[in-house]
Amino acid sequence: MVQQAVLDRVFSCLADPVRRAVLVRLGEGPATVGQLAAPAEMSLTGMKKHLRVLEEAGLIVTEKVGRARQCRLAPAPLDEAMSWISFYQRLWARRLDGLDVYFTLRKGEESDHDA
Amino acid sequence: MVQQAVLDRVFSCLADPVRRAVLVRLGEGPATVGQLAAPAEMSLTGMKKHLRVLEEAGLIVTEKVGRARQCRLAPAPLDEAMSWISFYQRLWARRLDGLDVYFTLRKGEESDHDA
Repeated sequence: MVQQAVLDRVFSCLADPVRRAVLVRLGEGPATVGQLAAPAEMSLTGMKKHLRVLEEAGLIVTEKVGRARQCRLAPAPLDEAMSWISFYQRLWARRLDGLDVYFTLRKGEESDHDA
Repeated sequence: MVQQAVLDRVFSCLADPVRRAVLVRLGEGPATVGQLAAPAEMSLTGMKKHLRVLEEAGLIVTEKVGRARQCRLAPAPLDEAMSWISFYQRLWARRLDGLDVYFTLRKGEESDHDA
């Protein structure tokens, strides 16, 4: 059973374009807070807030390297988010397929009646 | 190219447990605002706010049926969210696989040197 709080946190991270961009950037390799803030044209303080949210969701890990704080990707919690969406997508697709079959059959029966 | 605004809205919907529960419930069939509010132990006004957010993201459709407002699921925008996650998961998995190969090869070279 996936914890609701994990889904809350992971989806909440993904709901922000700056945080998605940070994940995409870290997918290419570790980066410092400054390296992440620059392309987003964001203050270090602003970026640090986003990084804290990502770290609380377990999507990134940060560590002090010399005087800088380095961040790297920890994509495992995305599995939970992915599983939630794909589970319900499959369930709903089956249900809609079932409805299609039902209406096709009913239409067939109506045509028989009309004939 | 997926619109960032679509991802913002869809992931934002999924970040809330009440809104996820509404989607799951509507996956079983249409429901009125009252039918959705009752299990969440929520006021009609509170539920209507969540439904507005879901409707703006295109994840549900609502229509007036008699005196009640009926809601039904429109899961198509979930495809965008799913595509975003699965695209980057695959990309990152390949990158991590690549790093594994690199370190395994390097380890092999180091052992050769040691030998």
